[in-house]
Amino acid sequence: MPATKNIAIIGSGLVGSLLAIYLRKRNHKVTVFDRRPDIRTIKFSGRSINLALSNRGWSALEKVGIADAIREIGIPLHQRALHVVGKPEYYQKYGVEGEAIWSISRGVLNKKMIDLAEAAGAEFRFNEKVWDVDLPEATIYTGESEKGEWKAYGFDHVFGCDGAFSRVRHKMQRRSRFNYSQHFVDVGYKELTIPANADGSHKLDKNSFHIWPRGKFMLIAMANLDGSFTCTLFLPFEGEVSFEKIKTEQDAKDFFTAYFPNVMDDIENLTQDFFSNPTSALVTMKCFPWTYWDKVALVGDAAHAIVPFYGQGMNAGFEDISVLDNLMEEFGADWDGLFRAYETSRKPNADAIAELSYRNFMEMSQKTADPLFLLQKKIERKFADTYPEKWVPVYSRVTFSDRPYAEALAIGDAQEAIMQGIMQRPDITENWDSPEIMQAIYEALG
Amino acid sequence: MPATKNIAIIGSGLVGSLLAIYLRKRNHKVTVFDRRPDIRTIKFSGRSINLALSNRGWSALEKVGIADAIREIGIPLHQRALHVVGKPEYYQKYGVEGEAIWSISRGVLNKKMIDLAEAAGAEFRFNEKVWDVDLPEATIYTGESEKGEWKAYGFDHVFGCDGAFSRVRHKMQRRSRFNYSQHFVDVGYKELTIPANADGSHKLDKNSFHIWPRGKFMLIAMANLDGSFTCTLFLPFEGEVSFEKIKTEQDAKDFFTAYFPNVMDDIENLTQDFFSNPTSALVTMKCFPWTYWDKVALVGDAAHAIVPFYGQGMNAGFEDISVLDNLMEEFGADWDGLFRAYETSRKPNADAIAELSYRNFMEMSQKTADPLFLLQKKIERKFADTYPEKWVPVYSRVTFSDRPYAEALAIGDAQEAIMQGIMQRPDITENWDSPEIMQAIYEALG
Repeated sequence: MPATKNIAIIGSGLVGSLLAIYLRKRNHKVTVFDRRPDIRTIKFSGRSINLALSNRGWSALEKVGIADAIREIGIPLHQRALHVVGKPEYYQKYGVEGEAIWSISRGVLNKKMIDLAEAAGAEFRFNEKVWDVDLPEATIYTGESEKGEWKAYGFDHVFGCDGAFSRVRHKMQRRSRFNYSQHFVDVGYKELTIPANADGSHKLDKNSFHIWPRGKFMLIAMANLDGSFTCTLFLPFEGEVSFEKIKTEQDAKDFFTAYFPNVMDDIENLTQDFFSNPTSALVTMKCFPWTYWDKVALVGDAAHAIVPFYGQGMNAGFEDISVLDNLMEEFGADWDGLFRAYETSRKPNADAIAELSYRNFMEMSQKTADPLFLLQKKIERKFADTYPEKWVPVYSRVTFSDRPYAEALAIGDAQEAIMQGIMQRPDITENWDSPEIMQAIYEALG
Repeated sequence: MPATKNIAIIGSGLVGSLLAIYLRKRNHKVTVFDRRPDIRTIKFSGRSINLALSNRGWSALEKVGIADAIREIGIPLHQRALHVVGKPEYYQKYGVEGEAIWSISRGVLNKKMIDLAEAAGAEFRFNEKVWDVDLPEATIYTGESEKGEWKAYGFDHVFGCDGAFSRVRHKMQRRSRFNYSQHFVDVGYKELTIPANADGSHKLDKNSFHIWPRGKFMLIAMANLDGSFTCTLFLPFEGEVSFEKIKTEQDAKDFFTAYFPNVMDDIENLTQDFFSNPTSALVTMKCFPWTYWDKVALVGDAAHAIVPFYGQGMNAGFEDISVLDNLMEEFGADWDGLFRAYETSRKPNADAIAELSYRNFMEMSQKTADPLFLLQKKIERKFADTYPEKWVPVYSRVTFSDRPYAEALAIGDAQEAIMQGIMQRPDITENWDSPEIMQAIYEALG
């Protein structure tokens, strides 16, 4: 077993606290710094799309034996429930029997993970602001204010798990030959709440991921343990129907009456929440390299922030940690080799899930209400049922598999090209489930 | 005439000093801050590809009446001189008769521009480091060190002309919905010098832009007034033939002997300069928005840094100023309207010249040595000579025109698509200048 190291983790969020657990399993000395107070001591007010924990996330939790503890605070979702204007509610199963994504509150999960990391022996230093990182020295500087007195801490290695607006990455970004991009989508989001029934039960099916697709915008909802649902409205910032246009309580009422009449009565204090809750932006952030020598590495959102439309942000961050752990096994004391292998193997997969997530907004908001798209999905399902070994949908490859994201993207694109050809057939609406169509797909797969 | 304003310019480089001259013409109070010493008081040691001043740059200088003063410190280049291995030197005219780009030293030009800006009434504050900008207040903070005491200066408007690594932009970048990317190419550069002959004359034709294309790398040279040439070696950082591989004086000698045997004797102190001069990186930087309210605007490299392979970096920055000046005329006291119009009209053109510049490395280093590419250029020239009103090459649209860069890119792509078709013809090598070929191009242009 290679020598144990003195390691700093910047950020006590989900990725930082899981990494702390992993590093403690390898007996390293672990100190986690966070500029914010201990989330366990405050009412959680973090803006957050309710999280969807899926296969990659679960694998990372299993490996350190904490999946069972986390399962207790989650709700499995087996299907999408689609609420399309002028149609009865209908359902799409996510995967095969037993496959589900799990709805989980970011705040509840984060508290649990910090408990587990502390129990595993990690030290947490909350309310301690990191202002600077000396990259080649793996030294971090903390203090009350950016211009005040600073304390220096030296480490063997530093992990930046400080999210999309990472200060550790920020420091790396000023170096030459550091590639970086941040791209905001034109759609913002706002969280709203559907409260529980008086008896504590859920107002909608709790084991479904609810979507109200409306073309350029949509509402989604995921169940919480207390009977409530966290809803998220995704809406363009500017334009004909947009956050910019909703200025008064009456505007908000009119908007929900026009587009979400069946759900508006359930949304607690609708117009009040609409104006008291923040409107937040969504960013795709890419960078490279992810490491500095054998000293500093970025993990999770700090290395690859993505938009939430595939529900993979946390899962991708947790998978980074699985990958790091496998490489620690392989590279032993060679941290330089470890960091090179980590960033080069992981980068294409981070780029792939960024692309898939970016595209998925269109699929969720627009295509799920498009009859031709739904027909295509029906054909794909029929084919997959007939030849399960020949067709695993891209959604399943991302969500219910541990195979690389880049592979899911490549195979998904190949499948889509085949289906574009199939959908051109003039008789497709009548003969969509005919043996000829199934045969044509089979042959196109080669 | 709208009210005069109290305006700060951050950066006393080429763009900052020209903007100062423009704003003084409109009678605004202008203060230029620079963290560096006055370039006129020090031996210039800035790393710089010798600049190529072309049409857009000249237009901006003409408009404030300083073009004649600048022409005295430049050398016109009418043609490329190509030094291909195993072929005699040959020449390509840049444009039609009389069209030229101008070789000019960044240092000499910058000194001259600061003189002119001071004469026009701008105040320069050198050695004054701007550490922070309060964007909504248009207030800047300067001081000896980032952690020391700061002085605050309030302005009506602030222009960030502080280059590719702009601190003003840096401040805007931390805001939500600010799109940003920095992408480094894998090729670096190093400056070397060909000294004058003993009698002060130039060793190569001084009115040519010299290129030694070698596929994945190249050497270029532009004449200086003192009889010397500034040479720039563009070479991959890593790989088979790369900066990384040249570690010793013998390595450097071997490299020049193998690839640049005819020029190596002329390069002053070759091996010594090779190791004492820095190897620099090249970045494409894009961002949006370029402004904050009516308070702060980015101009030049701070808004859109590009790689130097089209010789347009300075010209694009100067054109920003022409555009701003036209819009000041149009918008009068409405600075908010002015800044919106500036960024929305200018952004597509900045993106277009970034793309053209990125592509041009391939053309300069690789294609100028490719017989088929040279044949294509010969056909295009023949067609352009026959139908001058039907075919203006993209290089001329960029270099010898004031039409938008975005238009040059779009028309260039359409022309290239036509030529790709023409080059497929089996008889193209024999019949390249036949009336049939000319007719085919004419018809393809529609």
